[in-house]
Amino acid sequence: MKRNFKLTLEYDGSSYHGWQRQQGVLTIQEVLESRLEIILGGPIRTRASGRTDAGVHARGQVVSFYGHTSLQPEEIQRGLNSLLPSDIVILQAEEVAHAFHARFSAAAKTYEYCILNRPTPSALERRFVWHIRKPLERAAMAECLVSILGLNDFSAFMAAGSPVTSTERCIHQAALEAPDAHHLVFRFEANGFLRHMVRNLVGTLVDVGKGRLMPADFRNILAGRDRRQAGMTAPARGLCLVSVRYDESAGP
Amino acid sequence: MKRNFKLTLEYDGSSYHGWQRQQGVLTIQEVLESRLEIILGGPIRTRASGRTDAGVHARGQVVSFYGHTSLQPEEIQRGLNSLLPSDIVILQAEEVAHAFHARFSAAAKTYEYCILNRPTPSALERRFVWHIRKPLERAAMAECLVSILGLNDFSAFMAAGSPVTSTERCIHQAALEAPDAHHLVFRFEANGFLRHMVRNLVGTLVDVGKGRLMPADFRNILAGRDRRQAGMTAPARGLCLVSVRYDESAGP
Repeated sequence: MKRNFKLTLEYDGSSYHGWQRQQGVLTIQEVLESRLEIILGGPIRTRASGRTDAGVHARGQVVSFYGHTSLQPEEIQRGLNSLLPSDIVILQAEEVAHAFHARFSAAAKTYEYCILNRPTPSALERRFVWHIRKPLERAAMAECLVSILGLNDFSAFMAAGSPVTSTERCIHQAALEAPDAHHLVFRFEANGFLRHMVRNLVGTLVDVGKGRLMPADFRNILAGRDRRQAGMTAPARGLCLVSVRYDESAGP
Repeated sequence: MKRNFKLTLEYDGSSYHGWQRQQGVLTIQEVLESRLEIILGGPIRTRASGRTDAGVHARGQVVSFYGHTSLQPEEIQRGLNSLLPSDIVILQAEEVAHAFHARFSAAAKTYEYCILNRPTPSALERRFVWHIRKPLERAAMAECLVSILGLNDFSAFMAAGSPVTSTERCIHQAALEAPDAHHLVFRFEANGFLRHMVRNLVGTLVDVGKGRLMPADFRNILAGRDRRQAGMTAPARGLCLVSVRYDESAGP
């Protein structure tokens, strides 16, 4: 009997060329599928809630796949965690309804971007933060976040040449937190994200934080829909896919 | 003119065989001294507040050295940070009195030990925590901490065969914190620590947390001064040298 499974993954993306299979480079999808095939004894095709780029991390990536097996989800989880390298961990495994699809069923995703804002870099956090020496102006950046809430066209913050049917996304939450004196964390929840959208937003927000741009400039960039006006793409290592929300009941 | 410098270091110990130089393996001392010699143009011998074992981290290791140079401490710091690998960072550089010695002038050191206490391991924190599946009983462990406060003989928690003149150490603080639902952090401040002392204490405290030992057993182990009665040595990766305190004025 074909059953549908949902996995929740944590991974350190530092050593991988992102989620999606690519010829000639190591990806998280390839590593996960190879271990699933050992456990389930047949070819397995996984779907993730979305791609993560090379170097991007996840605390709650969601993946679904169909498998012919009598194994319980907990057995699949245990088996995977014993076969996977230590930088990929299955946090949860569940059986879900046949209609569930990690990407198409997703109602919202949350990303966080972490900045270390102090004079010296960090040895312990070097893989997980963007280090910025110059003190950033929090109030100005927070003012910009208000302008992206709700439904907007994010063409200005999309990677050049991305093929998409729509460049509109609805931002449910855009927050800036300072958990301590040296860290700044941007949190974005949206119904979806364009390619490089969070990293391009953060790169432009940092220009505002440095005083290179004013909040009004940021609003004009958003309205102008021209990628060339926005700031740099922030480094992948500061970005983490925190969670994916599914509204429907996910029972089998 | 010979000047005395004090460096404060953060490092990720994962890739090193500890602080102290050893033939045939890479150590933090060797890497630091090789970069200092490039900057100062002569042989440099550094002293640390104490050794850290292979895999142990530091957020505030302190190192001192004498150098013949007209460079300012900030110039030495900048030079080092540009030459050092990204897992070693100089947080601060100061000129200090000739009598200052990173080890002998130290009044107290603080270590933290971090445990991840949840069913699944963590991909993102795998280098920085000891993962323990079984829920640990916090109250019982906290009760043990009271018994090590003040001056005690820690022979029971010293690595076998360590050559030391005294096995007594004075514990100023021994705390157990739970920053969130899945993490437990032990914090120890003392005038000094024996070899493997924190890791042996934590290994034995975890036996108490699992219910294998009672707090009274822990007190008996401490009083018995016999290493063979204590628990396992906790893994190095959960341990971090947080800070070193110097009471004297450290001016030049």
